[in-house]
Amino acid sequence: MIEEIEVSRAIVENAVRDFLDCLEVDVAIAGGGPSGLVAARYLADSGAKVALFERKLSLGGGMWGGGMMYPRIVVQEEARFILDDFGINYRKERGQYIASSIESVAKLLSVAVDSGARLFNCISVEDVLVREKRVNGFVLNWSAVEAAGLHVDPLAVKARYCVDATGHPLEVCSIVCRKVGELNTPSGGVEGERSMWADLSEKLVVENTGEVYPGLYVSGMAANAVYGSPRMGPVFGGMLLSGKRVAELITKRL
Amino acid sequence: MIEEIEVSRAIVENAVRDFLDCLEVDVAIAGGGPSGLVAARYLADSGAKVALFERKLSLGGGMWGGGMMYPRIVVQEEARFILDDFGINYRKERGQYIASSIESVAKLLSVAVDSGARLFNCISVEDVLVREKRVNGFVLNWSAVEAAGLHVDPLAVKARYCVDATGHPLEVCSIVCRKVGELNTPSGGVEGERSMWADLSEKLVVENTGEVYPGLYVSGMAANAVYGSPRMGPVFGGMLLSGKRVAELITKRL
Amino acid sequence: MIEEIEVSRAIVENAVRDFLDCLEVDVAIAGGGPSGLVAARYLADSGAKVALFERKLSLGGGMWGGGMMYPRIVVQEEARFILDDFGINYRKERGQYIASSIESVAKLLSVAVDSGARLFNCISVEDVLVREKRVNGFVLNWSAVEAAGLHVDPLAVKARYCVDATGHPLEVCSIVCRKVGELNTPSGGVEGERSMWADLSEKLVVENTGEVYPGLYVSGMAANAVYGSPRMGPVFGGMLLSGKRVAELITKRL
Amino acid sequence: MIEEIEVSRAIVENAVRDFLDCLEVDVAIAGGGPSGLVAARYLADSGAKVALFERKLSLGGGMWGGGMMYPRIVVQEEARFILDDFGINYRKERGQYIASSIESVAKLLSVAVDSGARLFNCISVEDVLVREKRVNGFVLNWSAVEAAGLHVDPLAVKARYCVDATGHPLEVCSIVCRKVGELNTPSGGVEGERSMWADLSEKLVVENTGEVYPGLYVSGMAANAVYGSPRMGPVFGGMLLSGKRVAELITKRL
Amino acid sequence: MIEEIEVSRAIVENAVRDFLDCLEVDVAIAGGGPSGLVAARYLADSGAKVALFERKLSLGGGMWGGGMMYPRIVVQEEARFILDDFGINYRKERGQYIASSIESVAKLLSVAVDSGARLFNCISVEDVLVREKRVNGFVLNWSAVEAAGLHVDPLAVKARYCVDATGHPLEVCSIVCRKVGELNTPSGGVEGERSMWADLSEKLVVENTGEVYPGLYVSGMAANAVYGSPRMGPVFGGMLLSGKRVAELITKRL
Amino acid sequence: MIEEIEVSRAIVENAVRDFLDCLEVDVAIAGGGPSGLVAARYLADSGAKVALFERKLSLGGGMWGGGMMYPRIVVQEEARFILDDFGINYRKERGQYIASSIESVAKLLSVAVDSGARLFNCISVEDVLVREKRVNGFVLNWSAVEAAGLHVDPLAVKARYCVDATGHPLEVCSIVCRKVGELNTPSGGVEGERSMWADLSEKLVVENTGEVYPGLYVSGMAANAVYGSPRMGPVFGGMLLSGKRVAELITKRL
Amino acid sequence: MIEEIEVSRAIVENAVRDFLDCLEVDVAIAGGGPSGLVAARYLADSGAKVALFERKLSLGGGMWGGGMMYPRIVVQEEARFILDDFGINYRKERGQYIASSIESVAKLLSVAVDSGARLFNCISVEDVLVREKRVNGFVLNWSAVEAAGLHVDPLAVKARYCVDATGHPLEVCSIVCRKVGELNTPSGGVEGERSMWADLSEKLVVENTGEVYPGLYVSGMAANAVYGSPRMGPVFGGMLLSGKRVAELITKRL
Amino acid sequence: MIEEIEVSRAIVENAVRDFLDCLEVDVAIAGGGPSGLVAARYLADSGAKVALFERKLSLGGGMWGGGMMYPRIVVQEEARFILDDFGINYRKERGQYIASSIESVAKLLSVAVDSGARLFNCISVEDVLVREKRVNGFVLNWSAVEAAGLHVDPLAVKARYCVDATGHPLEVCSIVCRKVGELNTPSGGVEGERSMWADLSEKLVVENTGEVYPGLYVSGMAANAVYGSPRMGPVFGGMLLSGKRVAELITKRL
Repeated sequence: MIEEIEVSRAIVENAVRDFLDCLEVDVAIAGGGPSGLVAARYLADSGAKVALFERKLSLGGGMWGGGMMYPRIVVQEEARFILDDFGINYRKERGQYIASSIESVAKLLSVAVDSGARLFNCISVEDVLVREKRVNGFVLNWSAVEAAGLHVDPLAVKARYCVDATGHPLEVCSIVCRKVGELNTPSGGVEGERSMWADLSEKLVVENTGEVYPGLYVSGMAANAVYGSPRMGPVFGGMLLSGKRVAELITKRL
Repeated sequence: MIEEIEVSRAIVENAVRDFLDCLEVDVAIAGGGPSGLVAARYLADSGAKVALFERKLSLGGGMWGGGMMYPRIVVQEEARFILDDFGINYRKERGQYIASSIESVAKLLSVAVDSGARLFNCISVEDVLVREKRVNGFVLNWSAVEAAGLHVDPLAVKARYCVDATGHPLEVCSIVCRKVGELNTPSGGVEGERSMWADLSEKLVVENTGEVYPGLYVSGMAANAVYGSPRMGPVFGGMLLSGKRVAELITKRL
Repeated sequence: MIEEIEVSRAIVENAVRDFLDCLEVDVAIAGGGPSGLVAARYLADSGAKVALFERKLSLGGGMWGGGMMYPRIVVQEEARFILDDFGINYRKERGQYIASSIESVAKLLSVAVDSGARLFNCISVEDVLVREKRVNGFVLNWSAVEAAGLHVDPLAVKARYCVDATGHPLEVCSIVCRKVGELNTPSGGVEGERSMWADLSEKLVVENTGEVYPGLYVSGMAANAVYGSPRMGPVFGGMLLSGKRVAELITKRL
Repeated sequence: MIEEIEVSRAIVENAVRDFLDCLEVDVAIAGGGPSGLVAARYLADSGAKVALFERKLSLGGGMWGGGMMYPRIVVQEEARFILDDFGINYRKERGQYIASSIESVAKLLSVAVDSGARLFNCISVEDVLVREKRVNGFVLNWSAVEAAGLHVDPLAVKARYCVDATGHPLEVCSIVCRKVGELNTPSGGVEGERSMWADLSEKLVVENTGEVYPGLYVSGMAANAVYGSPRMGPVFGGMLLSGKRVAELITKRL
Repeated sequence: MIEEIEVSRAIVENAVRDFLDCLEVDVAIAGGGPSGLVAARYLADSGAKVALFERKLSLGGGMWGGGMMYPRIVVQEEARFILDDFGINYRKERGQYIASSIESVAKLLSVAVDSGARLFNCISVEDVLVREKRVNGFVLNWSAVEAAGLHVDPLAVKARYCVDATGHPLEVCSIVCRKVGELNTPSGGVEGERSMWADLSEKLVVENTGEVYPGLYVSGMAANAVYGSPRMGPVFGGMLLSGKRVAELITKRL
Repeated sequence: MIEEIEVSRAIVENAVRDFLDCLEVDVAIAGGGPSGLVAARYLADSGAKVALFERKLSLGGGMWGGGMMYPRIVVQEEARFILDDFGINYRKERGQYIASSIESVAKLLSVAVDSGARLFNCISVEDVLVREKRVNGFVLNWSAVEAAGLHVDPLAVKARYCVDATGHPLEVCSIVCRKVGELNTPSGGVEGERSMWADLSEKLVVENTGEVYPGLYVSGMAANAVYGSPRMGPVFGGMLLSGKRVAELITKRL
Repeated sequence: MIEEIEVSRAIVENAVRDFLDCLEVDVAIAGGGPSGLVAARYLADSGAKVALFERKLSLGGGMWGGGMMYPRIVVQEEARFILDDFGINYRKERGQYIASSIESVAKLLSVAVDSGARLFNCISVEDVLVREKRVNGFVLNWSAVEAAGLHVDPLAVKARYCVDATGHPLEVCSIVCRKVGELNTPSGGVEGERSMWADLSEKLVVENTGEVYPGLYVSGMAANAVYGSPRMGPVFGGMLLSGKRVAELITKRL
Repeated sequence: MIEEIEVSRAIVENAVRDFLDCLEVDVAIAGGGPSGLVAARYLADSGAKVALFERKLSLGGGMWGGGMMYPRIVVQEEARFILDDFGINYRKERGQYIASSIESVAKLLSVAVDSGARLFNCISVEDVLVREKRVNGFVLNWSAVEAAGLHVDPLAVKARYCVDATGHPLEVCSIVCRKVGELNTPSGGVEGERSMWADLSEKLVVENTGEVYPGLYVSGMAANAVYGSPRMGPVFGGMLLSGKRVAELITKRL
């Protein structure tokens, strides 16, 4: 027989235990889109303790909608192995690999979860923890608190490395640049995304992936946005490669 | 080299081909929550051509948020085999099975996709097709059209059987009852969900699963809502079993 | 030295422990306005385990604003002893007792807290638990979830007796009447508040206080609203007496 | 007999074929107001392959409302021949030509369509394609996606020449100036429209019509807004002449 | 030289003269969608004085968006001659005629204007004029007044016959049925549109076209909505035929 | 020298003294449109103590906007003497008297104020006071409280007679009919305004003016709305006569 | 007998005739608050042709609400004669003159109207007319057009002198400073209102009244806002004196 | 017997008397959160006449919600004595003191009220009074006026010292810096809060507490925000100590 309060107890206890266990992690990732999920998975695979925080109820970010709500994405040859790594099916046409955007989200999520990375939804990163010119954690709140216009204090989690994978609003970098100090960019600030040039942006997103402030890495669309590189379209290869790249860079330092 | 218009072409052509291929299916499902996804998968497994339409950008429905945004769900013994069937991990505590709500969505989606069911997002069912007192398809529109307040006509798809898996707003049943005819319920209308009684509602949701109007089945939370049964809480066993049940009922008739 | 994650841990652990401890109580009260707080205090004084749930961030309900935002309330002779009981200061003028509305809220809260009653804010009662024609608990959710328009399942708590002290929207009674069964009122439904007649309504609110459905009591403004009695103005004596009355009625049965 | 899915198929196939055929054009025009439509028509007449994208459901822009919702427009002598060219009726009064604003939109549209220009509605230009300091296409999305607040990637189309005919918000020029590089204006940026001086602005709008960035032309109200010229009132002669002018300038280079 | 106030004067004088000239007409039509425009044109062709009032800034109604924003419409054989009558181009595929939705609106408008019908935009019909159980005019207001939430009185125009061509909200019929008297329908009220059945609805829309209350005719989608017939999809033949039919019926009585 | 706090003191003291002086009046009027202002003036002229409460910041109601924002009103011969009584200028054309709507509001207000009637703005009537089946006062609140969505209690004022002059929403009658008892209308409820028939409605508005519930009179547009008479257009004669009529009826009983 | 269309005709013809007659005036005033109304009256008294445009439905501006919605205003000795001039009653207390805010608006309006000034409501000034570095008219639109979010062109009126009496948003000055040229202020721009210092601001508002750009005067609260003077409270003497002052300054030049 | 108008009279008279009595005080505090309440209490204890103005209906500020809606706060050893001073219960864990956020608000309020400080809700500080480079009072309005979008003038109160305790929007300091003159900060302006560093911010908040402009003090979260110090989390010790500190600093000068 199902006893409702046993259900309540099980849900709260298990979820809170998991959250408390993540108060101190190796890597904290802001943003549950493709680059965040890829990074989470490879970091977890390499043994790191990883927590990823997504503000929306659902993870997957801008990948769900494909291009103009046509639920397909395109991946170039260089990134095909990541599709294979995540078990995503694709079809080859004129040198490109085409996959379902819905399947891609589903598989990125499934594999990231199975890797041991901890995924949290409904939580937004509203600030960072700082110590002597270094980012060393996130300041979190329920995103529903903000949406409901409530005035409620946040809580903090600590991380050896933080990743901004929030896409082109690059929420964490914006906070750091406004409230902490200069970023590792030509102007010291956020450069902002340039107009679309798919071929170039796919290369740059991997090059731009890296540490923009002590303790803070940037990945995916946010990497291009912080360095003023062109925006990407519904080609997701660079995004996936950037997620893998940030995982490699951080793994070396753990 | 990536040529943007080749990306555009590949995405539109592939997605539209898939949509056109689904203008006539065996089963059309409204709602991409847990019961809809489970139904889609088992129907596809049995060889049916299945298309599922979800109005949100993301699929997964009310399962993402667990209970009160604590991302866990509970499943009872009777439904555990479905967790196994979809590869969802769980922990047993006091006779209940506890799983991550995020993982559960990811795995339901991944497996449903792999089964061959076709999943569409951003599309809402705004009406049904009728012929002589039988529902034989859905009338669809981009949900963004409605959200943007535009006046744009819908398009129609045909199906041998339709399933309302939209949860307690039971959107399709409401349309049928207002615009087509009496449902197979005591009052002939939508009875409306009663207050929570988890144990009972978990049993009833399976019993209530079935044909409520010629050509139209109801599954999951909508099944309880149409028959005036108690609502369910974050126990998802009944929901999953109902999805399986509707697949079995329809499979017999195909 | 202050370590942020120790702060996070302390806050979450203490609050969650308290919430879990309240999954099963003697009395659950919906609504943190004056009658709910008075009821909570006297019930706790008599040894009952009491939990009160308020949907707003702040407790105190409609008492904060006095009359037309003039922060004063009026109490008649019969209820003066409750002001004394809670240590609220007042001034006598023409047979009435006038107090600050802000002080009144502060003292009701302080004394209720000191009595051992457990007060929760930001949580709304979105449904009730039923078993065989008896209310035996509340179905709760973060009120921010609703305000943010998220689709997230609730959790349940169990109580031997429930009290609707939500004021004239009488939220719990409305749910019960729509989703459970007939109330103990002339029409079996919610009668709705009548126009203002302060003298009469102050008497009736005490008489109307009582059990409206097995397991569910009604108190304060909600008591008049459910029985179709006149509404009250910024005279709070009846409201306070009703809170005391519901505490007495339930105490006898515990 | 009408079969709904044949209707669906015909609509989707024909429209998508047309869209795919426009992935690469000679001229892409943003904005379906009078100057855009005039430009589209004369370009198509001269043999160019032209696609025009309007974000609203209806084309015609600010011409529908006449002056202060009085549905009339005024055209001066110099532009009368364009009214004749499009078959728009007018009446002469005190040296001005007065026409119905509704008829004017209808005829501009009809003739533009008959010229072979391809018109698309419900689509907004959210970015441009760039290559080595040259604009060579538009980045498009459903405008309903933006209105509905969805996070969905755009698609791109390629054009030898692009035209910003979006009126005084000059949407394309603003993007180019923020995300690509300096415009061919005194400040290198968007100057912004000055106060009304009808006589002067009617002359300047034709002079201002031209290439503001390699590959990008500006026409109509946007031409005055980008160069800081005075705004126009409900005199539409300059607007029409500007549309013709941009067509002539581009035709020479094709 | 352009003198702004001469522009102002010309616009106001011409537009107001036209409006005053339409204070008394033979036929007043509410709604500027396809059936209203077709009716206006054939009525004007037959010598009637016709005024059409549309609440939006643009005319064309639901035809602009084609099906699901794919800008194409379908017309069946029976109605092809109306496409020809209006000079709308089409392509034949599998027994259906496919036209551009944008061109169709443009041509319907152009031809209606050329027929001498008077078209007004930005004006909504907020009530009807009655005399002894007969509708004999419209009560008009700027639709912007309503949108801006202003409390401003309307003005009235008189007509021998009125037509509700407002589509499925059938705004005029709803007013008449609520504020004047019983309609000529089975229930005496508005029956409401049924679910889609394209073949049947295309036939019924012509049969349903007629007088629903002395002095008030119904045409197009509104004709099906008032009689409880199935809704139409993006097949516009019936709509066009209905517009022609209402013109014929009224012409006989003028 | 101006001392700000002396300004504050003077304003608060004078205004509050006036409000307190109006806690008990002969006649309380809800609604500061033309019929309310006319009634207030004639009642005050006859020696009654009158208070009028308007929810908006400005008084004048629907008269400001004339017809369709053309700031003119029309008055018929029978009511011309009221224009004269208030010093409103007019012009005679085809048997009607035409006045500026702005001047009319200004003069109605000026003369009403000079008559000694007390006018309050920003205050809404949210309920009535009742005693044994008689209305004997209003329950008031700041309308800003409602607009701001605050939960704040109202205050009450007593009156020998109350007048609902709130126009067609007839706010007070609606409250009485829902929360107090049956009105003196055929159905006992609010009949609702019928469609426009200016000639008839101008006559009926005077006949309908009277007592609809013990202690409650109705005047102006509300008088027609409560009895199901036709609505009026921008002809204000009946409205003015109704205001005079209600003043006469009440004066007899004072 | 009242014929509705005669009412419509009379209203439109009279109002439009008045508007057309005001296409060219001596003085055009933006803003119908106290300083605008005072200026309008004294200018009209001196024989000037004056038109005043107010964006709201009601005139009177910020005077309606007194101080904190207590409907009283205070005027100092120096400005008392203006109260007398307009027939406004007052009471003297501690050296100040206290009047009803509602009466004050009513009398300002009544007297301004009787002086022959033309008052228009529902119309906003969205731009100015310029000629060779001089403002010589206003560009007008229905304010409802803006509120309804419509894209509709404005119309223009010509004036020898223009007055910005729009209060502290100083709408016209902002436009001139952004779109025409430097104002006659220390910075050449709008300085912005400083914090309250009633005594000083009452003096400065008169001194600041004057020509800020060739052809454009500023009056009332806007005069202080443009020169960075302190804001005024509910003391209206300076405002009234400023209105008189601007009238005197302009009269000299006419 | 309760007479409603006696209730009205008692409430208005008592509240207004209190407000008028506070037109001139020793200390005026903006913001009813923890630091404002603590300051109010200690100032009142030392004999000062104190008035505190809160814009919300409820006082308590950001303390109600604890951390992420978990209703607990943490206080460090240094501030524990303030918990004792206010009678707030706590539990010690790992060197921190944990209290209920709801109890903390209740006790801060109760004790502040009992100290004789005057607390006002629903009132916002929209400006300051200035005299010769000194702040000497607040300019107040109902916050509902702003929320309702009304244009209503404020009233002023005078104070020897003013305190900005409005938290990180530091509303008063922002006004002073924009409309009065340079603050006593490095840049002369508002520096803005930096990212979270709990340990440091808890120290700095006390150091930052002080006079930022002649006559204006800053306290609590606002103290850190004005000086660019790190933000605090749900540790409230510094906030409480800052409230006590500002009280001490001002007391010395009274």
